[in-house]
Amino acid sequence: MSNPRRYTLTISCPDRAGIIAAVSGFIAEHNGFIVEASYHTEVDANLFFMRQEILADSLPFDAEEFSRRFVPLAKVFKMTWQLSDSSEKKRLVILVSKQDHCLNDLLYRWRSGELLVEISCVISNHEDLRSFVEWHRIPFIHVDMPGNDETAKAVAFEKIATLFEQYQGDCMVLARFMQILPPWLCQRYTGRIINIHHSFLPSFVGAKPYHQAYQRGVKLIGATCHFVSEDLDAGPIIEQDTMRIDHGDTVEDLVRYGRDIEKTVLSRALRYHVEDRVLVCGSKTIVFR
Amino acid sequence: MSNPRRYTLTISCPDRAGIIAAVSGFIAEHNGFIVEASYHTEVDANLFFMRQEILADSLPFDAEEFSRRFVPLAKVFKMTWQLSDSSEKKRLVILVSKQDHCLNDLLYRWRSGELLVEISCVISNHEDLRSFVEWHRIPFIHVDMPGNDETAKAVAFEKIATLFEQYQGDCMVLARFMQILPPWLCQRYTGRIINIHHSFLPSFVGAKPYHQAYQRGVKLIGATCHFVSEDLDAGPIIEQDTMRIDHGDTVEDLVRYGRDIEKTVLSRALRYHVEDRVLVCGSKTIVFR
Amino acid sequence: MSNPRRYTLTISCPDRAGIIAAVSGFIAEHNGFIVEASYHTEVDANLFFMRQEILADSLPFDAEEFSRRFVPLAKVFKMTWQLSDSSEKKRLVILVSKQDHCLNDLLYRWRSGELLVEISCVISNHEDLRSFVEWHRIPFIHVDMPGNDETAKAVAFEKIATLFEQYQGDCMVLARFMQILPPWLCQRYTGRIINIHHSFLPSFVGAKPYHQAYQRGVKLIGATCHFVSEDLDAGPIIEQDTMRIDHGDTVEDLVRYGRDIEKTVLSRALRYHVEDRVLVCGSKTIVFR
Amino acid sequence: MSNPRRYTLTISCPDRAGIIAAVSGFIAEHNGFIVEASYHTEVDANLFFMRQEILADSLPFDAEEFSRRFVPLAKVFKMTWQLSDSSEKKRLVILVSKQDHCLNDLLYRWRSGELLVEISCVISNHEDLRSFVEWHRIPFIHVDMPGNDETAKAVAFEKIATLFEQYQGDCMVLARFMQILPPWLCQRYTGRIINIHHSFLPSFVGAKPYHQAYQRGVKLIGATCHFVSEDLDAGPIIEQDTMRIDHGDTVEDLVRYGRDIEKTVLSRALRYHVEDRVLVCGSKTIVFR
Repeated sequence: MSNPRRYTLTISCPDRAGIIAAVSGFIAEHNGFIVEASYHTEVDANLFFMRQEILADSLPFDAEEFSRRFVPLAKVFKMTWQLSDSSEKKRLVILVSKQDHCLNDLLYRWRSGELLVEISCVISNHEDLRSFVEWHRIPFIHVDMPGNDETAKAVAFEKIATLFEQYQGDCMVLARFMQILPPWLCQRYTGRIINIHHSFLPSFVGAKPYHQAYQRGVKLIGATCHFVSEDLDAGPIIEQDTMRIDHGDTVEDLVRYGRDIEKTVLSRALRYHVEDRVLVCGSKTIVFR
Repeated sequence: MSNPRRYTLTISCPDRAGIIAAVSGFIAEHNGFIVEASYHTEVDANLFFMRQEILADSLPFDAEEFSRRFVPLAKVFKMTWQLSDSSEKKRLVILVSKQDHCLNDLLYRWRSGELLVEISCVISNHEDLRSFVEWHRIPFIHVDMPGNDETAKAVAFEKIATLFEQYQGDCMVLARFMQILPPWLCQRYTGRIINIHHSFLPSFVGAKPYHQAYQRGVKLIGATCHFVSEDLDAGPIIEQDTMRIDHGDTVEDLVRYGRDIEKTVLSRALRYHVEDRVLVCGSKTIVFR
Repeated sequence: MSNPRRYTLTISCPDRAGIIAAVSGFIAEHNGFIVEASYHTEVDANLFFMRQEILADSLPFDAEEFSRRFVPLAKVFKMTWQLSDSSEKKRLVILVSKQDHCLNDLLYRWRSGELLVEISCVISNHEDLRSFVEWHRIPFIHVDMPGNDETAKAVAFEKIATLFEQYQGDCMVLARFMQILPPWLCQRYTGRIINIHHSFLPSFVGAKPYHQAYQRGVKLIGATCHFVSEDLDAGPIIEQDTMRIDHGDTVEDLVRYGRDIEKTVLSRALRYHVEDRVLVCGSKTIVFR
Repeated sequence: MSNPRRYTLTISCPDRAGIIAAVSGFIAEHNGFIVEASYHTEVDANLFFMRQEILADSLPFDAEEFSRRFVPLAKVFKMTWQLSDSSEKKRLVILVSKQDHCLNDLLYRWRSGELLVEISCVISNHEDLRSFVEWHRIPFIHVDMPGNDETAKAVAFEKIATLFEQYQGDCMVLARFMQILPPWLCQRYTGRIINIHHSFLPSFVGAKPYHQAYQRGVKLIGATCHFVSEDLDAGPIIEQDTMRIDHGDTVEDLVRYGRDIEKTVLSRALRYHVEDRVLVCGSKTIVFR
């Protein structure tokens, strides 16, 4: 909550001996105090992943100077790396259609101080949620998505991309946004667009997953939060969960129960993401919880 | 455990008003004491399902007489029905290959008196588990399944069917039996062959589901117990469960964790089945837990 | 959701043969269509519990006439019984202090049409939540609860009781209301006051349960929804759940995670209660889910 | 499974900057390859905990030499530390009464190669399980525990301690051993005796926890694996889990379901312990999963 300011260093690089020693040695040299440290080796890919949280005040310099000094070390180990500062909150742009359970959940977590982000704006292809969003003093922008008009839709997605830039979004959250993003948009923001899908992927890809689940007679339903890629519902999975149903439950019951899993899974995944706990490795994620 | 003797009446029939009244009226007329009663209407199919447990000693006649007297009522409502007697234990024939975690679990539950069945025999395409099975004084029969010889395999399945009849099996349990049953066998014993599949179906059908799960990067793994049908891993699901994994887990870890879900799911499903709690409705099951 | 109108009949009475037959016979006689039926015998207490949902339109008379005709049967079996009409929504009076996660959750479920109740008013000993409640066009009433002034507190509780009557509340929901109710209030509304306690009872009764859990080093935390009785946190339990934590979690983390269990457990319990699924048997509940 | 040989280094010491750097620097200096690394700071106690797995073959010397060279560093940081070698399996002495579900589970995991330990012997106050244990070619020793004879009991516990020494036990596992250990035994082997208790502690301490749970009407039951201390069921908790029950479940059902949680919780906790993943901090544990 009122955590002291931290720098979070995330690294991926080819695996070899001595990486932890080199990085923690660099931090120790400057009296940096590590409050959380996680490591993972992806054996098949021979890649090493690392995340460290350092108390900002324990260092004699700021994030910029840290980065400048870290460059030579990063080069030696061929690191892809990033340093983020807990005092600079990530900026979310939330896309939503009519279903608002995820939106309601995210806005509550934000206004209660649990989800430490800025919510730059909410974009919707419907007007329904304007009043609720604006009660929070968050900009609400309606972008029309005419059902069958592909040209108009293309324009709408251009507008969404423009708004995302204009509002300086770090992360685009599809909080039950019932439209399929065009490939160019997925590519432009790889690793920055998060979707909540209402099934336990890879089961029940695409439309009406609760109906599919009902038809198949599964005994658990689920939800999946994943990065959006060009392939529908096939991007790297960040978080999933399931819950038990039984033969007495109708499709409507599944939809109702499912809302609770969807919002839980999305909020967890989003917290991991904004705290830089999620690193992508090919089609999979490493999540340093 | 030392439950008093019960008759379990299971019914399915077209739905209409008055079924519960008619059946419970029939039982009450003979002073039958109902200890458990469950109902379900499958709205789409307009079918009604029902299960009642009646104390045997509360009735003035035996199961045979009960059945004889029940026939007219059953005809009126066009019922498919069955009466089973808790003093006649179901007879299981267990098929297993080399992996023995499910077998070990079932035999333990049987010898501790938790799973109230007869285990008629264990059939395997390997010799490995003979000593363990025979320690329980249960017949162990080796049926050779040569890898690439389809003719020999066909003979082996004929032999399995013969053994099933000879040992008067009520239910064939594929407790990690790594062979695909021929269609004629699936058809002959529809609703009597139970398989444990090591994934959360419909995800990861077929071979090496843990490898598939690992490749896809899912955050939960699962297991599914289902009736065997001609379509691979597509029969009516009886029970499923999942558990959380993370990026640090190797395929070997998934296999290891998975064993615990597999045996739990199989033993639960089997208990439901032998207690006549599972009714099939098309491609789905009603499970009166 | 848009379910057809139903009557829900709940019954408890001494156990004996023929109860189901008599009740379902009575309903069938009038062509009543039963859409859900549940039974339970509490063996130790020799009590029988029953719940049936009947389609209102299938009966030739209304709820009043149903009740009039049912009286003789109820007498024969010494039933305590109740008939409720799904078209008459239960009226909730919600009490809350400053923590608003449960309130936010309940109001969302109400406004999305998932929780089928009237929310008569929200009463709080703080002013903080007025704006949010009033955005929903629900009356918000501030009742002052001075910390150490027992006389003033007694007056405040008198006022709460008066408001509950005035707003014709059916059920009083303590949605993280951080005040202990006086015995007379608990007694007056036995079975009608529901509390959410932020631990897995009977562990960690009383104040600061998450601190207690942290100190004890448990590996799971929980929440409990129960009817309020004179004994603190000792009333009949309606619903509970737990979630996994680990050594890395601080008390603040437990509080944060716990909010999600609390609201889930409260909303589930409340749904069971307003759908007349909860019957009290001594210090325990029967919940016909 | 067929993991390469590893050294596992576990450390606890007062927290300060530079510990990770010093230790990983020491390992890197000798080309040690770290395959798993975990850290934790217990803020209240100002203590730092650490666990690292190092590939044995990556080091130019053996465990003894590693230890010799590590001493000076350990002194600087006032470390309590330990180095274990995966090629030296921990030796378990299992104590059991009549209930054998945990024993059956442990022996299966051992003989299937999942639990990498030696089982030195099984000690019981009953003869019932001799045949099953001896089928595994594990010594079975019967130690009589006369119900009311405290002197004879004291002798029996002396004998157990002697057997533990004689069989060179590293860890004593109370796998449903229904006797309370004397304080001197708990003290002598602090941190080396593990018990499985059949409730979600701190609820339902002592005898017949499932009966207590049934009486209280809880909606979940649980099990707890903990280190044994002089205070009954109050030692540091290693692992816990819960499962859902409902009003229809009898005490016998709770006992039956509970067995599955007990064995799962015990086997998980035991695996953590033998892999040196459990570090004790006062009355709590750090578990580096």
